[in-house]
Amino acid sequence: MKIIYKDGTVAEAEVQEELEVLRHSAAHIMAQAVKRLYPHADFGYGPATEKGFYYDIDLGDTKLTDDDLAAIEAEMKKITKENLPIRPYVMNREDAVAHMQELGEKYKVEHIGDLPEDAEISFFKQGDYVDMCTGPHLCYTKALKAFKITGQSGAYWKNDKNNKMLTRIYGTAFKTQDELDAYLKMVEEAERRDHNKLGRELNFFTTVDAIGQGLPILLPKGSRVVQLLQRWVEDIEQEHGYLLTKTPLMAKRDLYRISGHWDHYRDGMFILGDADDEEKECLAMRPMTCPFQYQVFLNGARSYRDLPMRLGETSTLFRNEDSGEMHGLIRVRQFTISEGHLVLRPDQLEQEFADCLSLCKYFLGTVGLLEDCTFRFSQWDPNNTDKYEGTAQQWNDAQAVMAKILQNLGVEYEIGIDEAAFYGPKLDIQYKNVFGKEDTIVTIQIDMLLAEKFGMYYTDADGQKKLPYIIHRTSLGCYERTLAYLIEKYAGALPTWMSPEQVRILTITDRANDYAEEIRSALAAKKYRVSVDDSQNTLKYKIRNAQLEKVPYMIILGDKDIENKTVSVRHRSGEDLGAISMDEFQSILADVVDNKLKK
Amino acid sequence: MKIIYKDGTVAEAEVQEELEVLRHSAAHIMAQAVKRLYPHADFGYGPATEKGFYYDIDLGDTKLTDDDLAAIEAEMKKITKENLPIRPYVMNREDAVAHMQELGEKYKVEHIGDLPEDAEISFFKQGDYVDMCTGPHLCYTKALKAFKITGQSGAYWKNDKNNKMLTRIYGTAFKTQDELDAYLKMVEEAERRDHNKLGRELNFFTTVDAIGQGLPILLPKGSRVVQLLQRWVEDIEQEHGYLLTKTPLMAKRDLYRISGHWDHYRDGMFILGDADDEEKECLAMRPMTCPFQYQVFLNGARSYRDLPMRLGETSTLFRNEDSGEMHGLIRVRQFTISEGHLVLRPDQLEQEFADCLSLCKYFLGTVGLLEDCTFRFSQWDPNNTDKYEGTAQQWNDAQAVMAKILQNLGVEYEIGIDEAAFYGPKLDIQYKNVFGKEDTIVTIQIDMLLAEKFGMYYTDADGQKKLPYIIHRTSLGCYERTLAYLIEKYAGALPTWMSPEQVRILTITDRANDYAEEIRSALAAKKYRVSVDDSQNTLKYKIRNAQLEKVPYMIILGDKDIENKTVSVRHRSGEDLGAISMDEFQSILADVVDNKLKK
Repeated sequence: MKIIYKDGTVAEAEVQEELEVLRHSAAHIMAQAVKRLYPHADFGYGPATEKGFYYDIDLGDTKLTDDDLAAIEAEMKKITKENLPIRPYVMNREDAVAHMQELGEKYKVEHIGDLPEDAEISFFKQGDYVDMCTGPHLCYTKALKAFKITGQSGAYWKNDKNNKMLTRIYGTAFKTQDELDAYLKMVEEAERRDHNKLGRELNFFTTVDAIGQGLPILLPKGSRVVQLLQRWVEDIEQEHGYLLTKTPLMAKRDLYRISGHWDHYRDGMFILGDADDEEKECLAMRPMTCPFQYQVFLNGARSYRDLPMRLGETSTLFRNEDSGEMHGLIRVRQFTISEGHLVLRPDQLEQEFADCLSLCKYFLGTVGLLEDCTFRFSQWDPNNTDKYEGTAQQWNDAQAVMAKILQNLGVEYEIGIDEAAFYGPKLDIQYKNVFGKEDTIVTIQIDMLLAEKFGMYYTDADGQKKLPYIIHRTSLGCYERTLAYLIEKYAGALPTWMSPEQVRILTITDRANDYAEEIRSALAAKKYRVSVDDSQNTLKYKIRNAQLEKVPYMIILGDKDIENKTVSVRHRSGEDLGAISMDEFQSILADVVDNKLKK
Repeated sequence: MKIIYKDGTVAEAEVQEELEVLRHSAAHIMAQAVKRLYPHADFGYGPATEKGFYYDIDLGDTKLTDDDLAAIEAEMKKITKENLPIRPYVMNREDAVAHMQELGEKYKVEHIGDLPEDAEISFFKQGDYVDMCTGPHLCYTKALKAFKITGQSGAYWKNDKNNKMLTRIYGTAFKTQDELDAYLKMVEEAERRDHNKLGRELNFFTTVDAIGQGLPILLPKGSRVVQLLQRWVEDIEQEHGYLLTKTPLMAKRDLYRISGHWDHYRDGMFILGDADDEEKECLAMRPMTCPFQYQVFLNGARSYRDLPMRLGETSTLFRNEDSGEMHGLIRVRQFTISEGHLVLRPDQLEQEFADCLSLCKYFLGTVGLLEDCTFRFSQWDPNNTDKYEGTAQQWNDAQAVMAKILQNLGVEYEIGIDEAAFYGPKLDIQYKNVFGKEDTIVTIQIDMLLAEKFGMYYTDADGQKKLPYIIHRTSLGCYERTLAYLIEKYAGALPTWMSPEQVRILTITDRANDYAEEIRSALAAKKYRVSVDDSQNTLKYKIRNAQLEKVPYMIILGDKDIENKTVSVRHRSGEDLGAISMDEFQSILADVVDNKLKK
């Protein structure tokens, strides 16, 4: 793919810059199309982005409809067919200002004002359209072969809400139509699964203005899923020797001073009262559980025989996120996490770390998210040590221990520099969601610093007081975030074992009502989550409702079923299990639920 | 019992004032004894109290030992035997000041300064001792027959920490020695059961200075009890048609403005940020769940068919209590409650109220607390309407409805004026703890006001939009408080079904270790909470530990048990179940646990 630089040089594009140049030229071509259709249009910025491109345009009072966007796209097609050469030229600042003033481009004039005094200003021209731009660009408009306008929104000039609101038109471009089609299909599928849309439609959660951003309300369906995930994690952890704790959600600043959160994490904390008034008590909501759970260890003299002490808590945390960062159930200001800390002798570190990892893998694997996970070894940044507690020696030691453990366990990982916790290195399990965005879902951290700060000692076999190692870890991460990923992963159709409603009984006529109740109570007695739809709606309507609500199993009861004491079962996948006995259905259900199958 | 007033009148005491006069005279007699033993003593205030009396005394540098207190008590005995007449006399203010100055009573002089200009000051004299006092008193010291000094503490003069710290000597007095003995025994028993002592000793909970007052840490044992109570309540509520919710623990002030908490409850709330800065977002931790759970109702159009909507939540709340009020697990700044709101048509109110009451009674009865409960109908105060939302008409209506329901249900209650919630009347279930102190454990409230504020309407059968009634209720109250009451009720020996550890297996020799593990895993597989003590300690020591930790069942394994495949079972009550088969033991255990027996 040939591209042209602002000095007129033409060269073959590096592979990694191809998409960016293509999209940047697409933005120019889109602007040219807009200018042809809306001659009064005045242009702001129009960059390439990770997923395409956009242009911020002042259209005066004109509002664009979907038809208008289609017309712009059609005009772009025309421009590419015209195969206009895209050519650069250069001016000094003064001439550039005059040039842009002449063309009526007031935003470009303002932009020149932001550039250095001695800047040489470059322009790219294609046919009758000129844009101030540093390039590079495609050499001819025909080189843009696969593109699409994807939408519009409002955007303040320079992202400053004191400025005028412009129209931002979004698009994307790829080298080939196949690549574009694949991308558009992926986006469509991701949008269909988007928990922030689907999770609301399916009544898993909602948000309310009067409560605030990043503070989702889990509706009965979402609460039920989280409840059963929490109980499952608590019970399995219990089997693995974890002791449950329930520690306060707030503490005086004194505690955070000891832990280092006051110095390293205060901006992310919700503070009650005046943080700077040392005379009065000042409390803060907890952003992490560590310093609280340590108090459980500290509540008595500990010997080497008491270790490992594995502490688990279904822990609610609070983080004062910026409003711009909040998103659905994924980035919130309050969340609940399967938190835990293991207090260990050094000789127990490797085995316990391995057990923690295996536990996470069990949980993530069972819910079905592990297959989309990768591992990251998050280290400190030796060039940015202010963010971290402890000495270089301590960090090197901790990271060396962790590297050795990961090697022994055969974990394949990427390294993330400057991604550690302020008190130690982490193994982050990274989850890539349906939009391709990566977030940490689970983390296991080795901490060789905080025990000393809190005076957490144990008496070793030799009678000496010693400092333990601490592993900070979670089993399944934040329940809100996990719920979001599960909704997206399964497009709302959660596996039966974690479905808020597992079976819905649909009566064909009122004659089936008693039989429906008999079956309902038999299933409810076995703790299945079951309901009856004996409304006056048609069967078709009832099935459609159950499908829309993603209920895994529908039992449809007609006269034949009453007569033969059978149940006619249909799975939401469309599979028809036919008329079977309740025993048979219960054994199918027990298999799917007890074994946590992914159906 | 004859008493003498400050004007010299002698009369028979009313029954209800007898104890107060007795204790007030006891305070004087104690002061006289102190004066004899410590002539430099200078007296502050010395009133009768609900449980006895005290005197605040300036003893200079003298610190009292237990022996000193015994000596004071002995001197009091002597004074009663001397049978001194207690006689009043009166002076004007000027003479009274001179009189007290002469006796060196500088606190009394200061106290006179606080009295009105024209006050007539009265004194009571017994032998060589004079006290400024309004009486009445016993006529002779011999009339004080049953008394005891119970302790001492420091107390600031006039309870002002800027004043000098005086010595407060506590005592109590009763009409008869039998009554005194019964009281002292009750106190001893209460102290033995005091959750704030026993709960810490048994490692149910602890508190930590750096975290703060009223923010208890539930240790693994306490967490486990709360976990299983919560799950039990959630599951039973689920069976009763409750929908689980999980709503945020904080919200913007906007929400509390709608609900009325901002006007009526702000002092009790933890506020994040500046409450008075209207430009910036201001969040507050929630003191109640109501406005949050209402959002679940509001998340869709509701018809008469959707009602009753019963919403339940294991809800954490925050209340900014004064530091002086906090106590153990009973009065705390953060607690978790089995919260719930029922949104109802008017025709459903009575039945649903009855069901709520029956559910509370089931929960309180099953844990064993119901027998110590009484009922209070808490109403608003028509003379103090500022505290309440709504009109007199609305309150009269709501209270009339509630009175009718309570009458129909045959609930016997006391009336508590000015004890209502700010939005409606309550049925409070009052629990009297081992110290005789009464607190509300459970409450059911009728609210006819808040639905309108939140715009919560449903479409009735006639197509009209109507306002529902709301019941606010809890099933088992705050889990922290309930845990405290359970520890006190059972002196730490919680019934097996809710014991954090249900069975402990004690090996007599290492030969039993394998068998112990076999039994442990069999019981653990059935979800019993079981542990093994295979330490090198003697059996006697192991039994003692298990007893001290109140483990309900001990399985003691010796060679005979291994040989005969039996288990030798001992209950913490001392009951010896002998050597029985595992089947037999499991059926005993299943009976006790599954039926939630109180053993």
